[in-house]
Amino acid sequence: MAEPKLAYDRLVSTLKEISLLGSIGALLEWDEQTHLPEKGFEHRANQSSMLAKMRHDWFTSAVIDDLLAEVESSSLVQDVHGDVAVNVRETRRAYDRARKIPGSLVEEMSRTAVMSQQAWAEARKKSDYKLFAPWLDKTLGLKKQEAQCVGYERNPYDALLDEFEPGETADGVRKVFAELRGPLVELVGKVAASSVKAPVEILRRSYPLAAQEKLGREASAAIGFDFQGGRLDVSVHPFCSGMGPGDTRLTTRYDEHSFDNSFFSVLHETGHGLYEQGLDPKYAGLPRGDAISLGIHESQSRLWENFVGRGKPFWKHFFPKVKSAFAQTLADVNEDAWFLAINDIGPSFIRTEADEATYNLHVLLRFELEEAMLKGDLSIADVPGAWNEKMKAYLGLTPPDAARGCLQDIHWSGGAIGYFPTYTLGNLYAAQFFEKAHEDLANLDDSFAKGDFSPLLDWLRENIHRWGKTFRPRELVKRVTGKEPSAEPLLRHLRAKAALYGVR
Amino acid sequence: MAEPKLAYDRLVSTLKEISLLGSIGALLEWDEQTHLPEKGFEHRANQSSMLAKMRHDWFTSAVIDDLLAEVESSSLVQDVHGDVAVNVRETRRAYDRARKIPGSLVEEMSRTAVMSQQAWAEARKKSDYKLFAPWLDKTLGLKKQEAQCVGYERNPYDALLDEFEPGETADGVRKVFAELRGPLVELVGKVAASSVKAPVEILRRSYPLAAQEKLGREASAAIGFDFQGGRLDVSVHPFCSGMGPGDTRLTTRYDEHSFDNSFFSVLHETGHGLYEQGLDPKYAGLPRGDAISLGIHESQSRLWENFVGRGKPFWKHFFPKVKSAFAQTLADVNEDAWFLAINDIGPSFIRTEADEATYNLHVLLRFELEEAMLKGDLSIADVPGAWNEKMKAYLGLTPPDAARGCLQDIHWSGGAIGYFPTYTLGNLYAAQFFEKAHEDLANLDDSFAKGDFSPLLDWLRENIHRWGKTFRPRELVKRVTGKEPSAEPLLRHLRAKAALYGVR
Repeated sequence: MAEPKLAYDRLVSTLKEISLLGSIGALLEWDEQTHLPEKGFEHRANQSSMLAKMRHDWFTSAVIDDLLAEVESSSLVQDVHGDVAVNVRETRRAYDRARKIPGSLVEEMSRTAVMSQQAWAEARKKSDYKLFAPWLDKTLGLKKQEAQCVGYERNPYDALLDEFEPGETADGVRKVFAELRGPLVELVGKVAASSVKAPVEILRRSYPLAAQEKLGREASAAIGFDFQGGRLDVSVHPFCSGMGPGDTRLTTRYDEHSFDNSFFSVLHETGHGLYEQGLDPKYAGLPRGDAISLGIHESQSRLWENFVGRGKPFWKHFFPKVKSAFAQTLADVNEDAWFLAINDIGPSFIRTEADEATYNLHVLLRFELEEAMLKGDLSIADVPGAWNEKMKAYLGLTPPDAARGCLQDIHWSGGAIGYFPTYTLGNLYAAQFFEKAHEDLANLDDSFAKGDFSPLLDWLRENIHRWGKTFRPRELVKRVTGKEPSAEPLLRHLRAKAALYGVR
Repeated sequence: MAEPKLAYDRLVSTLKEISLLGSIGALLEWDEQTHLPEKGFEHRANQSSMLAKMRHDWFTSAVIDDLLAEVESSSLVQDVHGDVAVNVRETRRAYDRARKIPGSLVEEMSRTAVMSQQAWAEARKKSDYKLFAPWLDKTLGLKKQEAQCVGYERNPYDALLDEFEPGETADGVRKVFAELRGPLVELVGKVAASSVKAPVEILRRSYPLAAQEKLGREASAAIGFDFQGGRLDVSVHPFCSGMGPGDTRLTTRYDEHSFDNSFFSVLHETGHGLYEQGLDPKYAGLPRGDAISLGIHESQSRLWENFVGRGKPFWKHFFPKVKSAFAQTLADVNEDAWFLAINDIGPSFIRTEADEATYNLHVLLRFELEEAMLKGDLSIADVPGAWNEKMKAYLGLTPPDAARGCLQDIHWSGGAIGYFPTYTLGNLYAAQFFEKAHEDLANLDDSFAKGDFSPLLDWLRENIHRWGKTFRPRELVKRVTGKEPSAEPLLRHLRAKAALYGVR
């Protein structure tokens, strides 16, 4: 027994060091998107790619394999949900995957991501797809190489998706969309035909930035974000980065003539941040102390953004605050009008600003384009056209320019191809978790209305956050809710929202 | 000839990679002082110390020694001021020094610096020396160990000073202070006795922060700072960090009731930034593309802050801008009054806010305390008392609290013991460079008065910045000015300032 224990201890300390190196990479990336001077991107690309390669070389060294093997064949892993078994199982999974990818490819992907993201930001600003196309081409080529290295049974997409959502497949995602698509299109159509219209112009009035920022921070803190262990900054594309214990960083963007854009992105990123802050610091740097998957991560962000943040009880507490922060702007607006405005359902160009129902159609579009690009059925040059066609088909809209079309998202520029479906999985899981929390906690709505969100956060901490990677995504959902993951809870939630428009 | 050339190429690429790692450490430090959440310090300490040890281990590996030896014994280094000779000479110097310091000590010093700086910031805020004393004790112990490892002939101080100012010694510094002290004390005494008084209350009026920031940025850009390749942020203690090509970062702090505090610290840090931005990017990551020493660095910051920024021609151009930015505040102030106010000479508590004459007495005090601490003649517990005694002796003042006494500077908390004298050397060198620039460039004052600072910046780029570490500090001064470094130019400059008070 002594040998495996020693091997495990050494594995743990090595993994913690490697994770520390990874967390430095996270800072480089956060800084790149929040503070880096425009002339500094090449130097940053050199820094990031070197660090990524160092981390990769270290993690894929034979010593990790030896240590894993020593523990795997011992009794230490008997309890399959015990710390040791979880750390060993998930490290083995990541190790076997990483071993298949050469360090030179990792380095190249990291360097390309920095330069490509800079090109994307410029292209988006100028709404000029041509500036980004060569970088998308290069990124796609690298991701194809990655898929080849990793290997797959049926679909190269599976090899990429699996990195973000362990165990998930393109077929699984297609099944989810098959359940969702029909009901969603029907529901969106009924809402569009309703005589009830959300007074969205309310949200486009003047909302001075300083007051937006103040209110966003207040809401973030109210639902539980610990600002002593985190920050909120500005970036082109909102994100959350959990850099390590005591350091979780959120970003948003502000637009004076859009209340919802910033406010709900702050709630969204706070949801991610609460998950990061809820991980067990004792296991920091180990799978046991790390988030399960992007889908589960997204379930947390969407839960707070939509299920809590667009709910009636939340606004019982927050509407008076908004009204007093923007007294002039909202002089003629009452709570009911406000509530309907922030629950507008209808087609729009930008995914991050889409309502809860149409959101998943945005994701479907991206999933289909990604698959086509990977299979070679869609050329880089044809992406804007294919994007616009699908927008027309699913949402009845044609983007007026590339910035509001295929250039709107940062993901592809950073090499995150196979990532979008985790957003819809997140919506599914959020709905299922939220239903269960309501079953378990009797007076949840009352506590929200009083501005007390701690019962829900405690429930999430207890049932999800503190477990790290102990369970796989679908396994966790079943364990927490007692049911297989399904689209039903999400559809129930959306139908309830549609009832605001007299739709049944 | 082929072998040494290959060895040199390999040395260059390795040094560039090691430097890249170092530049990542610089980002960790910048972020620590500008953005790190308070609960994130321990994690940051772990990151920084790991990176410092990795860099140290890499740089001190035997392969560097082998490569150096191969080139050193070749004809590649014949031209002593050629790129190869400079890179080899300075790498050898740093290598031999680093080899004497164990990686574990480097790691410990780096970790301690992060935690100690956090303790210092807290202690300074609460003006409670007790909070910082244990960390100063620990830091001093580590620096003593470092001095022992590095070795020295006469004085442990030399071993530490040499890191910041290659070739400089405590004896050399003492000689400089011996030249300066008498004339400075006399000059300050005469100014104090003069009936002319600077109307400093002008600078303590209300200066709204946003306008201060705007004006600071404008001045920084006007003297040549490239904001596309740099930034300006806020930190407790202003600093400049040259992170690499295209990424030079300045910080300052704002106080509504002090115009000069922020404005001159921006000019000061911009001076450092201009040096960094003037280094040859072709040699980035190599000694040939790196700043010579802290003394030469400080000569650039002090030159722009004091010799340019507190000069009459500068304010011919800038006073109308200040007056319009703070129209109400300065309604009753004319250019002469303003000029006298920003050239106030008189004792004060805070070094960074001290006038040009008394500034060097602040440095003398720190130098003497550091030497005493290192020799064991001064205990940690007695530092505040010794500080206050010397303040009384040199400046006639007793600090009302530790924040305005021995807790005012960040340096000791970060392990920068032996650093302060480089400030006074910088003042000496700045004066000598500035006199020479005036000799070489006929209409310098006229161009300043028109807001054109490029002739001076070009001169500095040509004579100093672009040379990197080609020359040692005193060698550069002699080469540029044709004279040995001396206190005379500084004293001439200060006497000219004293003439504002009718003092001759």
